[in-house]
Amino acid sequence: MGAEPSPRELAEALVAGDRRALARAITLVQSRRPTDREPSLDLLDALPDTPDDAHRVGICGPPGVGKSSLIEALGRHWLDAGERLAVLAIDPRSPVSGGSLLGDATRMEELSRHPDAFVRPSPSAGDSSGLGRGTRESVLLCEAAGFSRVLLETVGVGQAEDRVRGLVDTLVLLVQPGAGDEIQGLKRGLLELADLVVVTKADGDLAAEAERAVSEHRQALALTSSPRSGWERPLLSVSAHEARGLGALADGLAEHRTHLAATGRLAAGRSEQAVSALRFDLREALWERFLTPERRAALDRLSTEVASGSLSPGRAVARLLESDESAESR
Amino acid sequence: MGAEPSPRELAEALVAGDRRALARAITLVQSRRPTDREPSLDLLDALPDTPDDAHRVGICGPPGVGKSSLIEALGRHWLDAGERLAVLAIDPRSPVSGGSLLGDATRMEELSRHPDAFVRPSPSAGDSSGLGRGTRESVLLCEAAGFSRVLLETVGVGQAEDRVRGLVDTLVLLVQPGAGDEIQGLKRGLLELADLVVVTKADGDLAAEAERAVSEHRQALALTSSPRSGWERPLLSVSAHEARGLGALADGLAEHRTHLAATGRLAAGRSEQAVSALRFDLREALWERFLTPERRAALDRLSTEVASGSLSPGRAVARLLESDESAESR
Repeated sequence: MGAEPSPRELAEALVAGDRRALARAITLVQSRRPTDREPSLDLLDALPDTPDDAHRVGICGPPGVGKSSLIEALGRHWLDAGERLAVLAIDPRSPVSGGSLLGDATRMEELSRHPDAFVRPSPSAGDSSGLGRGTRESVLLCEAAGFSRVLLETVGVGQAEDRVRGLVDTLVLLVQPGAGDEIQGLKRGLLELADLVVVTKADGDLAAEAERAVSEHRQALALTSSPRSGWERPLLSVSAHEARGLGALADGLAEHRTHLAATGRLAAGRSEQAVSALRFDLREALWERFLTPERRAALDRLSTEVASGSLSPGRAVARLLESDESAESR
Repeated sequence: MGAEPSPRELAEALVAGDRRALARAITLVQSRRPTDREPSLDLLDALPDTPDDAHRVGICGPPGVGKSSLIEALGRHWLDAGERLAVLAIDPRSPVSGGSLLGDATRMEELSRHPDAFVRPSPSAGDSSGLGRGTRESVLLCEAAGFSRVLLETVGVGQAEDRVRGLVDTLVLLVQPGAGDEIQGLKRGLLELADLVVVTKADGDLAAEAERAVSEHRQALALTSSPRSGWERPLLSVSAHEARGLGALADGLAEHRTHLAATGRLAAGRSEQAVSALRFDLREALWERFLTPERRAALDRLSTEVASGSLSPGRAVARLLESDESAESR
């Protein structure tokens, strides 16, 4: 591949299995440079349709619950079964990752080296969910490159799940043993977003506690409504360390995908996701387009006045929009 | 007061203690009608400076933790001490309130009737935090009307605390007995936002458990960093039912305010809040201004194409911005 492949060439190369082309394509769709916008749209237009067996899976849960260990273990399970998978992982250097330095150095190393797996850290300039710009497009690129299972790792605190829910077919919530009580409050909203719930670290000293957590969560699940009617949310315990429960998890994921496809919700969900991406991206684009260097300077100047209390935020907004309108009518 | 008071008349009336004027003024600043925008800015400009003793306090916590009971009990405590207070409460009819119908019918009834208290439900069309448009401005109006303590009630799930943090001087997180374990995961982020932590329902059967929760939370607090250096976050247990712990809570709030004032952070925090309101409101205004009926129709049309998969979201955004630019150059 030359130094400047066209978007079409890039699409062809990544479909043919060129990993460097895939990496380059992801960089392109995540770019903020205005000159990258049109090539990025051309690239996406040049992709084949989403493969029939594609499955987009979000993995969310609080820091320390064992997301990357679970992803690595599930990934190995899938590789052993002959599947190809991609992981869009939270960049460990990102301030939102919450991971330890030691864990980060080795995370997903085995997957990264496997020819049938592709691991890509999200850009550190992501939002609070750890999902950066172009995440949706990166998923499409991975699928086009033949990685039909795509795992999206996300930091789990409220907002993140909402974002990731709009990017995946199936959302898996990880909880840890001993966390049963929290259901009552904060996590109920998260449970309502989840399609599968997995109690992690069901091994060693925590094995008994994991079983207790499963039964506690079963009660909580019974009290919350499922995000999708007609789907009985599985509650599983998994040990990434001892590689136990991974077959059940893989089966649960496959069943959920089959359920979505059979009820027509797979396609409907993806359509909704595309439309919400349109709205989200449009808002971002409006903001970026508005913030010319001149207006950014005006915003900074007015911000100083607002900070000093001499101008109300609402008045500052009115002034910025006013100057904008007079600039346009010139 | 006539049927159509000017913004200045409205400001004068509410400063003079006219409760109907205050209610009307809040309706004005929360209005989405474009014709209400300028009068609303005039009204805010006509207000006196924030009173020296103003204290803006956010009360957050999961549904069922006892937010409104605590607010009512703290409100009574303050009223007994001769203070005047306003509560911007979550509208019980709002889908985000999570309150029971029975509880809602009577919530904050006593405060509502007291001459030195003012209770206003947030508009039900609020965001997921239960905080609607114009919340910041409503706080300013309450302060101008002499309610120097303003309590903001918010539903607590991630995003909400971020929003409310940008509106208050002091953020109180409510947790319930038996919820100690949840700290480990999801709630760490919330603890980092809180200035005071209150274990609720420290009465009857739950009293012993509340004490256990306090000691568990004390450990968790020790592990999380304080949002403001130099401030040792108090951890209190309160029984709204038995009116116990309210003096300590009121003292803790007063101490936090004194701490903020002494370190210069009270003014700095409010300046930051005003600037972030400017940015938030500007984004909203850009979106509203963009969405003319014509463009809304175009957005709907393109959304259909995006949903069908015949157009990428990015391409749709480009088209909407393009048509926008050609319209402007006409």
